[in-house]
Amino acid sequence: MNLIIDIGNTFAKTAVMERSEILHKTVARELSCTALEEVLHTHPAIDRAILSTTRNPDPAIEAYLQEHVPCFVRFTPATPVPLVNRYATPETLGADRLAAAVGAWDIAPERELLIVDLGSAITLDRVSAAGEYLGGNISPGMAMRFEALHRLTDRLPLCTTPQHVDLTGTSTRNAIESGVVLGILHEIEGYIDRLGEKNETLTVFFAGRDANFFAEKVKKPIFVAYDLVIKGLNRILEYNAQP
Amino acid sequence: MNLIIDIGNTFAKTAVMERSEILHKTVARELSCTALEEVLHTHPAIDRAILSTTRNPDPAIEAYLQEHVPCFVRFTPATPVPLVNRYATPETLGADRLAAAVGAWDIAPERELLIVDLGSAITLDRVSAAGEYLGGNISPGMAMRFEALHRLTDRLPLCTTPQHVDLTGTSTRNAIESGVVLGILHEIEGYIDRLGEKNETLTVFFAGRDANFFAEKVKKPIFVAYDLVIKGLNRILEYNAQP
Repeated sequence: MNLIIDIGNTFAKTAVMERSEILHKTVARELSCTALEEVLHTHPAIDRAILSTTRNPDPAIEAYLQEHVPCFVRFTPATPVPLVNRYATPETLGADRLAAAVGAWDIAPERELLIVDLGSAITLDRVSAAGEYLGGNISPGMAMRFEALHRLTDRLPLCTTPQHVDLTGTSTRNAIESGVVLGILHEIEGYIDRLGEKNETLTVFFAGRDANFFAEKVKKPIFVAYDLVIKGLNRILEYNAQP
Repeated sequence: MNLIIDIGNTFAKTAVMERSEILHKTVARELSCTALEEVLHTHPAIDRAILSTTRNPDPAIEAYLQEHVPCFVRFTPATPVPLVNRYATPETLGADRLAAAVGAWDIAPERELLIVDLGSAITLDRVSAAGEYLGGNISPGMAMRFEALHRLTDRLPLCTTPQHVDLTGTSTRNAIESGVVLGILHEIEGYIDRLGEKNETLTVFFAGRDANFFAEKVKKPIFVAYDLVIKGLNRILEYNAQP
């Protein structure tokens, strides 16, 4: 049984997995040793664990895993993965981005992929049909855009995910809500258009917190795949635990 | 002779204007009474002034203008303008947005307009061919997106305007630089596409600090018009100073 730990910018997630099925999941702002102990205690069959973090490492958590799980993989730029990594600076590549690419490739192998992860940041990553991770772009996520407009100006209010979006805002809240949402929508559609021109079989995955919200609005065929990072990490753990 | 004062989120600008020509301009982070005194001293013919601010008002500056300029207009939501204002909440409409719309309408009257102001924030405002300000959307500007990605995450570096943009970033800096620039480009092109479908004679103005940077990259016909806010404020001053 596998334990997957994915510490992102905003949330720390754990998933207990049996083959490619998620049996148990936790999501919190921080991952404490107590919470980790609880997961291991309730799932004594866990014999392999992988930890991926986009934050600064937590030595207590790592020491705990090292001691209590027979096979522990800390996912680093040096960890072998089932994709060829074409990133120029693998040591600065966010672990979550590569893991999501592996997760998508596992679902749709041998296809040209665009993986749009809509979390704190938006990452748009590409995998070639030959199984190469090509890299991708990063821009601010929806909540980050709302927060930036409020915190980095004198007078704009703090807005949140709207119920309703207009092409032309007619109040300041509506202007910000619609501006942020349509901005992200046009941004993603622009990438799909440009990449789709070159490759008609492009397969697009949406993942992350805001995946469903934008999946409903985007005028292109896409797949929503939650837990792409977790599934990718599970695949990487299996790949590295092979005898 | 007119004095135009435009205090935006990042910069405080003054412009001395004779008819629609800018004779002298200052740009600083803040506008002090000393700086204002200097402008009035070197241009004693100034007999009219207008002040527009998106920050909290500065009573000292306003008192100084009231005392030293025969005709002083503080631009507020109640100030008459040569456009019909269809904004639902005029009291929350940024003065700079309405002023830029007036400035654009003065250059291209009786055309359907989209005014994209690329400053601290990006505002995308619409004017109908009948001379109605319709409202518009707001999203974070380029520098704000770079700052948000750095300040609101643990590990991403602070990036700045790049020399070079890639469809697929292959280092973290390149991914952020390209992601922010292409994101804004797709965002704006998305609006131009959607509005252009409905109205073939749509005229698009780019204004603000980053106007030239994006004008070179956008694949649509647009006009770059610096000082659109200042020109609009000058027009509003003339409009209100009429006998």
